[in-house]
Amino acid sequence: MNSSMKIYLAGSFIETEKELNVMNPFTGSLVAKTYLAGKKEQEEAILSAELSLLEMKKISSYKRYDALMHIRNRLLERREEFGQTIMLESGKPIRYALSEVDRSIQTFTIAAEEAKRLPVEYLSLDWTAAGDGKEGIVRYFPVGIVAGIAPFNFPLNLAVHKLAPAIAAGCPIILKPSSTTPLSTLLLAEIIAETDLPKGSVSILPMDRITGNLLVTDSRISLLSFTGSPDVGWKMKTDSGKKKVVLELGGNAGVIITNSVDLLPALNKCLVGAFSYSGQVCIHTQRIYVQRELFEDFSKRFAAMVKQLKTGDPALPETEFSSMIDEPNAIRIESWVNEAIGGGAKLICGGMRSGSLYPPTLLTNTNESMKVFSEEVFGPVVTLEPYDEFEEVVDVVNNTKFGLQAGVFTNEIHEMDYAFAHLEVGGVIINDVPTFRVDHMPYGGVKDSGLGREGVKYAMMDMMEPRILVKSKIW
Amino acid sequence: MNSSMKIYLAGSFIETEKELNVMNPFTGSLVAKTYLAGKKEQEEAILSAELSLLEMKKISSYKRYDALMHIRNRLLERREEFGQTIMLESGKPIRYALSEVDRSIQTFTIAAEEAKRLPVEYLSLDWTAAGDGKEGIVRYFPVGIVAGIAPFNFPLNLAVHKLAPAIAAGCPIILKPSSTTPLSTLLLAEIIAETDLPKGSVSILPMDRITGNLLVTDSRISLLSFTGSPDVGWKMKTDSGKKKVVLELGGNAGVIITNSVDLLPALNKCLVGAFSYSGQVCIHTQRIYVQRELFEDFSKRFAAMVKQLKTGDPALPETEFSSMIDEPNAIRIESWVNEAIGGGAKLICGGMRSGSLYPPTLLTNTNESMKVFSEEVFGPVVTLEPYDEFEEVVDVVNNTKFGLQAGVFTNEIHEMDYAFAHLEVGGVIINDVPTFRVDHMPYGGVKDSGLGREGVKYAMMDMMEPRILVKSKIW
Amino acid sequence: MNSSMKIYLAGSFIETEKELNVMNPFTGSLVAKTYLAGKKEQEEAILSAELSLLEMKKISSYKRYDALMHIRNRLLERREEFGQTIMLESGKPIRYALSEVDRSIQTFTIAAEEAKRLPVEYLSLDWTAAGDGKEGIVRYFPVGIVAGIAPFNFPLNLAVHKLAPAIAAGCPIILKPSSTTPLSTLLLAEIIAETDLPKGSVSILPMDRITGNLLVTDSRISLLSFTGSPDVGWKMKTDSGKKKVVLELGGNAGVIITNSVDLLPALNKCLVGAFSYSGQVCIHTQRIYVQRELFEDFSKRFAAMVKQLKTGDPALPETEFSSMIDEPNAIRIESWVNEAIGGGAKLICGGMRSGSLYPPTLLTNTNESMKVFSEEVFGPVVTLEPYDEFEEVVDVVNNTKFGLQAGVFTNEIHEMDYAFAHLEVGGVIINDVPTFRVDHMPYGGVKDSGLGREGVKYAMMDMMEPRILVKSKIW
Amino acid sequence: MNSSMKIYLAGSFIETEKELNVMNPFTGSLVAKTYLAGKKEQEEAILSAELSLLEMKKISSYKRYDALMHIRNRLLERREEFGQTIMLESGKPIRYALSEVDRSIQTFTIAAEEAKRLPVEYLSLDWTAAGDGKEGIVRYFPVGIVAGIAPFNFPLNLAVHKLAPAIAAGCPIILKPSSTTPLSTLLLAEIIAETDLPKGSVSILPMDRITGNLLVTDSRISLLSFTGSPDVGWKMKTDSGKKKVVLELGGNAGVIITNSVDLLPALNKCLVGAFSYSGQVCIHTQRIYVQRELFEDFSKRFAAMVKQLKTGDPALPETEFSSMIDEPNAIRIESWVNEAIGGGAKLICGGMRSGSLYPPTLLTNTNESMKVFSEEVFGPVVTLEPYDEFEEVVDVVNNTKFGLQAGVFTNEIHEMDYAFAHLEVGGVIINDVPTFRVDHMPYGGVKDSGLGREGVKYAMMDMMEPRILVKSKIW
Repeated sequence: MNSSMKIYLAGSFIETEKELNVMNPFTGSLVAKTYLAGKKEQEEAILSAELSLLEMKKISSYKRYDALMHIRNRLLERREEFGQTIMLESGKPIRYALSEVDRSIQTFTIAAEEAKRLPVEYLSLDWTAAGDGKEGIVRYFPVGIVAGIAPFNFPLNLAVHKLAPAIAAGCPIILKPSSTTPLSTLLLAEIIAETDLPKGSVSILPMDRITGNLLVTDSRISLLSFTGSPDVGWKMKTDSGKKKVVLELGGNAGVIITNSVDLLPALNKCLVGAFSYSGQVCIHTQRIYVQRELFEDFSKRFAAMVKQLKTGDPALPETEFSSMIDEPNAIRIESWVNEAIGGGAKLICGGMRSGSLYPPTLLTNTNESMKVFSEEVFGPVVTLEPYDEFEEVVDVVNNTKFGLQAGVFTNEIHEMDYAFAHLEVGGVIINDVPTFRVDHMPYGGVKDSGLGREGVKYAMMDMMEPRILVKSKIW
Repeated sequence: MNSSMKIYLAGSFIETEKELNVMNPFTGSLVAKTYLAGKKEQEEAILSAELSLLEMKKISSYKRYDALMHIRNRLLERREEFGQTIMLESGKPIRYALSEVDRSIQTFTIAAEEAKRLPVEYLSLDWTAAGDGKEGIVRYFPVGIVAGIAPFNFPLNLAVHKLAPAIAAGCPIILKPSSTTPLSTLLLAEIIAETDLPKGSVSILPMDRITGNLLVTDSRISLLSFTGSPDVGWKMKTDSGKKKVVLELGGNAGVIITNSVDLLPALNKCLVGAFSYSGQVCIHTQRIYVQRELFEDFSKRFAAMVKQLKTGDPALPETEFSSMIDEPNAIRIESWVNEAIGGGAKLICGGMRSGSLYPPTLLTNTNESMKVFSEEVFGPVVTLEPYDEFEEVVDVVNNTKFGLQAGVFTNEIHEMDYAFAHLEVGGVIINDVPTFRVDHMPYGGVKDSGLGREGVKYAMMDMMEPRILVKSKIW
Repeated sequence: MNSSMKIYLAGSFIETEKELNVMNPFTGSLVAKTYLAGKKEQEEAILSAELSLLEMKKISSYKRYDALMHIRNRLLERREEFGQTIMLESGKPIRYALSEVDRSIQTFTIAAEEAKRLPVEYLSLDWTAAGDGKEGIVRYFPVGIVAGIAPFNFPLNLAVHKLAPAIAAGCPIILKPSSTTPLSTLLLAEIIAETDLPKGSVSILPMDRITGNLLVTDSRISLLSFTGSPDVGWKMKTDSGKKKVVLELGGNAGVIITNSVDLLPALNKCLVGAFSYSGQVCIHTQRIYVQRELFEDFSKRFAAMVKQLKTGDPALPETEFSSMIDEPNAIRIESWVNEAIGGGAKLICGGMRSGSLYPPTLLTNTNESMKVFSEEVFGPVVTLEPYDEFEEVVDVVNNTKFGLQAGVFTNEIHEMDYAFAHLEVGGVIINDVPTFRVDHMPYGGVKDSGLGREGVKYAMMDMMEPRILVKSKIW
Repeated sequence: MNSSMKIYLAGSFIETEKELNVMNPFTGSLVAKTYLAGKKEQEEAILSAELSLLEMKKISSYKRYDALMHIRNRLLERREEFGQTIMLESGKPIRYALSEVDRSIQTFTIAAEEAKRLPVEYLSLDWTAAGDGKEGIVRYFPVGIVAGIAPFNFPLNLAVHKLAPAIAAGCPIILKPSSTTPLSTLLLAEIIAETDLPKGSVSILPMDRITGNLLVTDSRISLLSFTGSPDVGWKMKTDSGKKKVVLELGGNAGVIITNSVDLLPALNKCLVGAFSYSGQVCIHTQRIYVQRELFEDFSKRFAAMVKQLKTGDPALPETEFSSMIDEPNAIRIESWVNEAIGGGAKLICGGMRSGSLYPPTLLTNTNESMKVFSEEVFGPVVTLEPYDEFEEVVDVVNNTKFGLQAGVFTNEIHEMDYAFAHLEVGGVIINDVPTFRVDHMPYGGVKDSGLGREGVKYAMMDMMEPRILVKSKIW
């Protein structure tokens, strides 16, 4: 890692007047210096993107494939370097940082393949005499310039979930990474710059929030794709003018453990779902419901496992748990846990903050009046509650403003079917935690958790606009 | 037709305190009295819709099919009565009014069939080791309550394009018809009431604009589907909060006539595309571009045909052209034509208003500074211009803020392909006018012409939310 | 029912020199007289079919839809008459005969809808530089003349499964009904003759086997679709020359009852699956395997239910069970049961033949050396055996040369998944008998049970031939 | 290239008692020695394939992908070596041999991607009350052991079109390459052996015809996929027993050159389509029809271009044309040309055989009584004829027993549509020769040209068997 990284403006690596220091959340030391784009650089990025629109649209399938596979192959070659960068800028344990790189490699692979498979739909139009002798062909064209705004928690892969589909769909994109963790995407820019993609087609520009918000209102942007917190996201929808908006926001995902399964695999998966990257994950396993007969057993064993999580320096391969992204977030978690305890919740384990490190924490006796239950914790806190009837616990899981994903551990067909039909979420995960995600599945929330879906092909669909050709048909 | 029609609130036909008189645009006499729903009735409709959500979701395919086919069959039986009602409330010539009923019959037929074909997608999830042994099933669930706001110009079928997909998708719907032309949808309510659909699932409520706008902001509505004017539509998007929005707005559709085709079929189609229902059609053929060698010939023959259009009482079967919806609109058209002539345009024929009747009018020598060129005329005015090069005229057709549909008369493969790739619209119609639409094709605009698509299956997609089930797979 | 019915040759109802008497299997009395087509009539049917090929191909979607919906609507009007005819010619209890008519109504409905939805596939061809600038459109064209050979057991609906897809796909068809039960399809011919379909497009001709076999070898026939017995079917494949062949043959379907379900619904479904139409059903529930703890209970209750089946005159609405199609078949069943008992099988109930009536019969202690186990019984005999391990019983169900459908009563996800992955059949039916079929699902067997699938859309696919158009594409 | 290559039996490279010498068709010298498999080796291959069935079925998507991409990557690395081998064993000019390797690289890439995209179809089953509460999932399972028989003319890629889909679909495969050109597939075996695929899943065994034919009749083989000559293929269908059969046979492809296009690109493409690899290509451009006004011009220019084809040693990069596979074939061509001339055909150029080299030859004044017109030439002979009306020439192109592909050079939409609707072939190629093929498009013939389609995904469909799971559904 260089101690200084330039930002990526339409094919050029530049410096600006406004420096940005990226700090290691665990050590507090400087990782690298980079720059914030201002209004001027943003304007240049938009103009360059506009100039690239036609060229981007015209790229043949195999050239889109080649460009995306080049990026994929180079990421694979530089995997270790990307993992280190993610770890350093985000404090994410290196084992998870490397997993994130692997997922980005996969995200680019999928995008490369989907670039050859843009949907085209054919329609007989002669369903009435009015359309006799006519047929329709529906092709999807790039929607225009995409603005992507990415969060800190998966600094590489959640940006890649905007970049890769945009390239595959033929849309120029201006990506704003989180100012806290911009380095891994700027590293990615080096690889993107090696391809033959039009220069204006990709810009990666850290910006302050005010500058970033200009992308939300700018009428030359056709699609805003935002991943981040609900309040910010929904406000953007209101401000977005005529553009399309995709929002990937948060949740407080619940998981249900029924009597019909073995506890051990469920415990293992819950441990990772709840505490990987300190719970700073949109589909963090925040609420665990265990059928009453198993509750005590689950609770004890889970607490024991939680206490054995290897906490410490994210650079070490054995580390499973480390600090949060910054101290204010750790303080926020502390206050939410205290609020819950004050309201009658019982602390099973965890709960003592030390700087930006908040330990893995289990609470029980919680209720919907507490923030740890009804808001998005986005931290290493989990509520653990017993339940009696399956239909009831489905209602409890639904009883929140969010609806991202939910997990159900069961071996009963009827419970699986019921959960699928009635859990108000974007994804129902059977025999795994709600934290489960692979990069080609449709991913996104209902209710306050978002609008639209990501997962390469699904993101691409939002980046394209259907156009029907109506023409003659000869039988 | 009764002289008084009640409005349809969640299964009941009711009167309110606020009467609404529906007038015949051609005769100026009263067609029938009906009522405006107020805040109270709207609230009741929303509460009833909420109560029907679960029941609506649970209806089996064959019952959805049966309900929609019942409506279809009864519309067919009462075809004449519906045609008369449309004609009386809208002033649309009876021949076109009956065509509209036929299209609604077809729209319900399609919805019935699509209700059995809700999309479900299957995904192998084992594309990496992280998803080994897992598969995904993506099902689409009703999004929630739909608010539909329909315009006056196709009082029946554009409302049916919201009602039929909502029933097929399993969404309760509150429909606000145009206050000018609410009668045909209220007649439809009689048929809907004959079905077994949950009572709260359909309400058809004329409202004033202020009351109607409460639907836009109400957070219990999950989807707003609006067909109407661009300014109103885009404002609604800003006001819509967290709900999904579909906008079917206007345009100023262009058609290109190349040398490679016979003029006669093109002339005949342009005549209907330009002047049916006095051009009060979203995809009204507003701008005609003819390759220069044919321009004079086309122009003369078209003017001659326009002059022979049978104008008069919409109730007569021979009538092809009649008055506009009201005098203010005719006055607006008059002023736009005068503005164009003042700016150098040449009147080929037409141009003398008489009350709410504005005659079919052709202009040439127009340019983009004139409203008749660059705004949506929504009246019986057409601009006629020559062109030289195909690529150039495609640019001219694109050179407007709208992008709904465009027509191209050509027998050349290359021109067809080029038009499809480069006309910035929702639909490119080869060898027909942009006014072409059948009810199962995706229909909607780009740029300022709208957001999203209608055309039963496409409307249904917006009314549903994907949910993935992730489960184990055994090979 | 008239006492004499003509046969249907390319739009005309004709008599031939060879009379055919259709007898009531229950009463033994004459139902009606009809005729056998000879070589001459067959030749005429083929020539007329050839002449109609082009016209059939050119029919617009809406006209195909209209023709098929006309047939559907008229079947609905004449439902009772068709039910009676099926009952009289086949001895099928009237309740099941009417169900068969309902299914045929549904089969035509599906075909009408699918006629509008012929698949067309679009392909980007620019996956390498060799295809740069090219796209492909794959349309499906009628394969040519279809010969359909139908069995006696569902005299109407199994013929309709050939007729309706052929009309929807645009293929002329020559249908040979069973000589035992030709009347209901000849009645259907009256309705088909009311449509605007080309005269040569449908012929319904009873024939003797030698004449019928000429269809198998005739090179002007493009597809042979046969439903009947395995030996006859596989021989036809060998004799079929260059034509395509679809074979819907028999089986000895097994069902597995696990501990995880309630017995009552399973018992009820098994009763119908095993004994409706005296087991003369391709997916007759022939082998029942019950998990050992439940075996005794199941066995007793099932025997009790079997004894209470209402046996007698098929014309009576309460009759559940009646005679077989003819005495030779009943004698065959008798000998197979005796062979089993001689080999050590134990008779639980049934087993005394009376003319063509063989009573509902349960056997246990059977093994694969017995015909009742390993051959297709096609009669009212069921074997009932206990099992211990799920994986083992799946192997037992598989341990036969047939593979049509299998049923599994279970509430366990793992068993459902395992059964789907490992039962070697065309259909795995969870919580229902293998006898379950609806008319739009893909239906057909593996191993000796057949080749290809029926179920309207699937039958249509075999009746069509893909053709790709490779053309230029402009981005 | 080693002077001796072993054959590939279920993971082992072996020698047999029967040596096979592979000769260079141009030089007549020995390329390498290899072996013929006998009955014993074939039996071993079948037994090993059977043992691998379950393991093959169970391989996860990503492992199938990895295996296929490994083969692809290694082919890319060894591209030159494979090109040389093809050139040496087949006499194909090196430029075309290298293209063939590139296509095989692409064929494996496609198969890798399709292995992750096996089709699964979902069906609502509640279209009538009989299916209420039920849904269906149709998954495709490997059909069993595939026997592939490949021809000499694309020794690598036409074998790869059987191997790659079989691996992707999960079917063990026994491949018989042509005894004339087995070396490039045996070289490929070295790469396949590097993967983790089950040992028994692939065998590549040269055999004499008698031994090879045992694969046709063996009942343990589930699918026979044959590419070769029509007579041999259709005979195999008759002998195939219960197995599925795919036949990719020959043709005498026609191309139509209309007035609406520039001649130069048409001439260039026809030159390659007609004479690459001496016309020993299934979709060899055998018959050229030129609209009368252009005929003289086309004819002269084409003859001039033909005369300038660089003929000679296939090892030289500049060589465009070389000898046929063997002298008997050249003698056959000589006699067919003489027969045509004797019947009145006129020789435009070519026509003097020299050993196994037959020069590029143009004939005109041909008719359907001549073999060069109505049979498959499979050599460097082309007929050139004028035509007047488009509809007529379509009939002429159709007037043959074959129907593989056809080309049409036109810029008229109507001609394109008419050709697509009425040319009786598997592929209609607009503005290119019938010889056009990319490896993911459906490829195969109608009439005597074959049965079924290849083109990775299409080949995979034939290698899989649908199975429906019917289960409960909760709304």
